Amino acid sequence: TIKHLFKQIFKASLELQEIDYERTLLVSRKAHPENTVVNINGETVGDGVQRFVMGPCAVESYEQVREVALALKEHGLTLMRGGAYKPRTSPYDFQGLGVEGLKILRQVADELELSVITEIVTPQDVELALDYVDVIQVGARNMQNFELLKTVGSVKKPVLLKRGLSATISEFINAAEYIMAGGNDQIILCERGIRTYERATRNTLDISAVPILKKETHLPVAVDVTHSTGRRDLLLPTAKAALAIGADLVMAEVHPDPAVALSDSLQQMDIPQFHDFMNELNAFKERLV
Amino acid sequence: TIKHLFKQIFKASLELQEIDYERTLLVSRKAHPENTVVNINGETVGDGVQRFVMGPCAVESYEQVREVALALKEHGLTLMRGGAYKPRTSPYDFQGLGVEGLKILRQVADELELSVITEIVTPQDVELALDYVDVIQVGARNMQNFELLKTVGSVKKPVLLKRGLSATISEFINAAEYIMAGGNDQIILCERGIRTYERATRNTLDISAVPILKKETHLPVAVDVTHSTGRRDLLLPTAKAALAIGADLVMAEVHPDPAVALSDSLQQMDIPQFHDFMNELNAFKERLV
Amino acid sequence: TIKHLFKQIFKASLELQEIDYERTLLVSRKAHPENTVVNINGETVGDGVQRFVMGPCAVESYEQVREVALALKEHGLTLMRGGAYKPRTSPYDFQGLGVEGLKILRQVADELELSVITEIVTPQDVELALDYVDVIQVGARNMQNFELLKTVGSVKKPVLLKRGLSATISEFINAAEYIMAGGNDQIILCERGIRTYERATRNTLDISAVPILKKETHLPVAVDVTHSTGRRDLLLPTAKAALAIGADLVMAEVHPDPAVALSDSLQQMDIPQFHDFMNELNAFKERLV
Amino acid sequence: TIKHLFKQIFKASLELQEIDYERTLLVSRKAHPENTVVNINGETVGDGVQRFVMGPCAVESYEQVREVALALKEHGLTLMRGGAYKPRTSPYDFQGLGVEGLKILRQVADELELSVITEIVTPQDVELALDYVDVIQVGARNMQNFELLKTVGSVKKPVLLKRGLSATISEFINAAEYIMAGGNDQIILCERGIRTYERATRNTLDISAVPILKKETHLPVAVDVTHSTGRRDLLLPTAKAALAIGADLVMAEVHPDPAVALSDSLQQMDIPQFHDFMNELNAFKERLV
Repeated sequence: TIKHLFKQIFKASLELQEIDYERTLLVSRKAHPENTVVNINGETVGDGVQRFVMGPCAVESYEQVREVALALKEHGLTLMRGGAYKPRTSPYDFQGLGVEGLKILRQVADELELSVITEIVTPQDVELALDYVDVIQVGARNMQNFELLKTVGSVKKPVLLKRGLSATISEFINAAEYIMAGGNDQIILCERGIRTYERATRNTLDISAVPILKKETHLPVAVDVTHSTGRRDLLLPTAKAALAIGADLVMAEVHPDPAVALSDSLQQMDIPQFHDFMNELNAFKERLV
Repeated sequence: TIKHLFKQIFKASLELQEIDYERTLLVSRKAHPENTVVNINGETVGDGVQRFVMGPCAVESYEQVREVALALKEHGLTLMRGGAYKPRTSPYDFQGLGVEGLKILRQVADELELSVITEIVTPQDVELALDYVDVIQVGARNMQNFELLKTVGSVKKPVLLKRGLSATISEFINAAEYIMAGGNDQIILCERGIRTYERATRNTLDISAVPILKKETHLPVAVDVTHSTGRRDLLLPTAKAALAIGADLVMAEVHPDPAVALSDSLQQMDIPQFHDFMNELNAFKERLV
Repeated sequence: TIKHLFKQIFKASLELQEIDYERTLLVSRKAHPENTVVNINGETVGDGVQRFVMGPCAVESYEQVREVALALKEHGLTLMRGGAYKPRTSPYDFQGLGVEGLKILRQVADELELSVITEIVTPQDVELALDYVDVIQVGARNMQNFELLKTVGSVKKPVLLKRGLSATISEFINAAEYIMAGGNDQIILCERGIRTYERATRNTLDISAVPILKKETHLPVAVDVTHSTGRRDLLLPTAKAALAIGADLVMAEVHPDPAVALSDSLQQMDIPQFHDFMNELNAFKERLV
Repeated sequence: TIKHLFKQIFKASLELQEIDYERTLLVSRKAHPENTVVNINGETVGDGVQRFVMGPCAVESYEQVREVALALKEHGLTLMRGGAYKPRTSPYDFQGLGVEGLKILRQVADELELSVITEIVTPQDVELALDYVDVIQVGARNMQNFELLKTVGSVKKPVLLKRGLSATISEFINAAEYIMAGGNDQIILCERGIRTYERATRNTLDISAVPILKKETHLPVAVDVTHSTGRRDLLLPTAKAALAIGADLVMAEVHPDPAVALSDSLQQMDIPQFHDFMNELNAFKERLV
C-alpha cells in the first residue's frame, strides 16, 4: 500500500538524518569508534580499567584535605576531588575557600603524589585554575553555561563534565560537543542523578545513561554516587551497580567528620566508612574482571 | 542555645514518629527483620539466590508461548511471564487473549514444568485466575487500584506488584501493605522504571529503589529491565546492574519474532538474542557469588 | 536536493498518519467539530457557560453534607461533589463510607435539588451507583483502569474523567476514548495537576492542558483547583486562571470544619471561606463575559 | 500524651525556623511587605498595572528588529525583548550576533523610544551591556550561574531573572536573593515553564508559581508564554491565564517571518498574528480591571 511505502521512506529518511547529525558531532562514536582515553598525570580513564575519585565535598582546611588524602593513599587511589568554589542554592551558605582552597588541594596533592579534580564555576577562573588543578570539573548547574564550556574547551586540561540537574542525555552530549569543538577532547562525562518527583533520594540515579553514553560517544563515563543518591547508605550498592554497568570512574565524597562538614554533611562518608566502602568495592571489582 | 535545643527535640520527635509509623506497617523490615521468601511451586524468591523470569510481552498463540518456554528451559529457568490481559493506552490496540491466553500459559507450563506469572487487571478476574496462574501480577497502571490490591491480598497466591508509572517508593510500599493487610505476605516488589523528562529510554530505571526497598521492607525485589528501558540494547547492562545492586529477580521479555509482536515489539529480544543474554548474564552472575 | 525531497515526503507522511489516527478517535474534534454538551439533570456543561462543582472531599455524615449543600445553594450552584469511596495511599487511612455515603449524597441532593458527582473505583460498583449518582467520577489513580473505563462507557450516565497523576495529554485522550468507544459520549475531562519535582504545591496545575484538550477533543474540560494545588490560598487565583483560559467547569472542595476532616484537611475551604471564594469568583466571571 | 507534646514542640520549632529563615531573605515579603516596583526608564513594573514585553527570539538584523518594534509601538508597548547572545543546546546552532545585536537593539530602541531587555550570559559581558541595555535578562540555563547573579547584583540596572529549567520555587527565590544581596533590588521574576514528562508542550507552564512568588516575595512576576508552551496556538490562552492570576508582565516572541527565524521558529508569532494577539489581550485585560 501507499501508506506502507510512505512509512518506509519516512524511516529511511529519519535514519539518514540521524546518522548525518551524529556524524557531525566530534564526540560521537559514529565519527570516532575508538574509546578516548583521558590521561591525568599518567593515570588513565577510559581504557577499560575502572577507577575511583574520592575526596571531601568542600575544601575546609589543609588538615582536613590531608587526612582524606592519606586515606585515599591507603587504597592506592591517585585521583582526589574537593571543592574550592561551591555553587550553593543560598547566598548565605558556605561558598568555598576559593583560590585558598585550590592552593590547599595542590599542596596536599604534591606532597602525596595525587591528582586533583575540582570545580571551576566561571570562565575568568579557568586560567588561574590551570596552575593548581589536574582536572577541571564543570558542575551540574553549569552544564549549559556555554561560555564556561567554550573556555574549558580551549585549554589543555582534562575536563569532567557533570550532567545538568534535568538535562537530557542529548543535551549532555551536546554540552560535551561544545568542549570538544574548542579543541579539547580530554572529557569525562559524569552521570550524577537527575531531578524527578521521587523524594527518597536526593536525585534519581539514571543508571541507564552509562551504557547509552558509552554507545553514543567515545568518551569515558563516571558515576557520582554521592550526589545522585544523597544517602550514605546507598553509596556502596549504587557504586556496585555503576561498576557492573560499565562506568569507567566512580566518584564519592569522604570527610573526616561529616557531622561538622560545611556542606552536604548527610551524604559524606567518614574515614572508617570510607575504608569499609573501598574494601567492599575493591573485592566486588576484582570479582567482575 | 535554645535554638539548638529545639533542633534536638525536633529530631528526636521526628525519629520517634517515623519508627512508630513504620512499626505499624506489616511489610516493614522494622516490624519483621527477616527476609520474606516467596515460594512459587517450590522455587523460591528472596532467599539470596538471584533468579530470572522471562517470556513474551503478550500471549499470542500456543506455538509462540511454547517456543519461548523451550528456550527458557535450555537455561534451566522455571518462571515464565506472559500477558493475557494487556492494559493498553488505546482501546484499539491488541487487548490480549484473555482467558484463552491463561489457558495457553497453563498448558505450556504444565507440559514443560514451568510456573506462570501473568497480569490480572480487575478484581472480578482474580478467582478465575487462581486456576491457571502461579503468580498474579498487579501491573504499574493498577498499583493504586486498591480494590484489586485488596482482592489479591485475600487469596493464597503469590503476587508480583509493579511500581506505578510515577509512584513514590513510599506509595509503592503502602500499596504492598494493602495486599499484606489482607493476609497475603507472598509479595514480590518490582521496580519497572519511573516516568521522567528523559526520552532516551521509555522510562528511567530507578536502580536505587532496589536497596531502599530491601532496607525498608522484608519483601523480595525484582527489576523489569524491559519496561524500564524500552530498549533491547540496554537489557543486558541494566540486568547486570540489577544483579550487582542485589535484586532478587530480573524480568525481561522474549518473543520468537519481535518484529511481528502484537505489543511492544521494539523492546523484546528474539530467541537467539535471549540465549546470548542468558549466557552473558549467567556468566556475570557466577562471578558475583 | 534529495535530502530536501525526503524531508517533504517525510512531513507529508507524518501529517497523513496523524490526521488518520485522529480521525479514528471518536473523542477527536477532527471527527466531530461541534462541542459535546454534557447534560446533568438539565444543567449543561460544555455549552459556553462556565460552571462550578463544589463539595467536601469525603462524605462523613448527613449533617456535614447538608451544611455544605446549603452553602452551595446560596450561590445558586446545582452540582455537588463528595467522595463515598476514597482511594487512599495507606490502607489504614479513612476509606470512605461506601454505599452509606452514596445514600447520604442522594438524600441531601434530593432534598435540595442538587446533582451529585462522586467517584466509583471498581467496575462492580458501577451498577449500584446508577441509583444514587448523577455523574460518575473516574479518579486520577483509575484513569488507566481500563475495565472501569469500559464499564462506565457502557452505561447511560455522564462521566467525569480525571487526568492520571502523571498521564500525558495523549494518554488522557485515549482513556476518554475507551469510554466513548463503549457508547457513552457524556464525558467531562478534568485536569487536576500532574506530578513534577516541584514541592511548593501538591501537584503542578498544567493549565495549558485546558486549551489543548478543548482543541483536540469536543468534550468539556474541568479544572480541579483543590487537588492540583493542595493549598487553600491558591484556590482563588488558580480558579480565575482556569476561567480565563476557558475551562467549562471549576471544581473545589469545601468542608464545614476542615481541621477535623477525615481526609485532605489542609486543602479544603470552610464555609465562610467558600462564600468569599464564590463571591470573588462570580464577580470575576461576570467581568469575563 | 508525651507524643502530642513532642508534636507541638516540633511544629513550633519548625515554624520558628521558617519565619527565621524567611526574615533573613531580603526578597521575602515577610521582611518587606510592600511591592517592589521596578522602574525601566520611567515605565513601571509591579505597581498593579499589567504590562507586556514583546520582541523577536534572536536579533537577526536592524530591519527585523525595527519591523517588530514598529508593531509594538502600534499597541503602545514600550518594552522590547530580543536576544543578542543565544544559549543554544548545540554549538553548531546560531549563537546570536553578540555585541552587534546589542547595538541594533539600542539603535532601534532609541529611534522609537523603547526600552530594551536582553539576555547576558557571562559576568564579563555585564559591564559592556550597561551601555546598551535597559533590563538585563538572566536566562533559565543561568539561573544558578551564581557568578553571573553576583555580577548583575552589583550593578544599577533592572534584572529579569528567569526560572531554571527545573528549578524549584525555593531555588528560584534564593537565586533572586543572590542578586538582591549584592545591592540591586530591581528584579523581575519570570516563570517560563518547567521541565516535566509531558510532551504536548515544550515545557509545562507552572501557573501556580505566580501567586506563590507574589506571596513569598515583594518582587514583580512575569510569565513568558512563548517558552513555557512552545506553541503559537497557546500564546493567547496562557497569556489570559497569566493576567487573570495576577502576573505583572507577560512576555512573548514576535518575528516578521517566523518560518525563516534563526531560532525557535515554531513558537514565534508573525506580525499580523501579533496584532490579533495584542488586540484580543488588551480587550481581555480591560475587562479584568
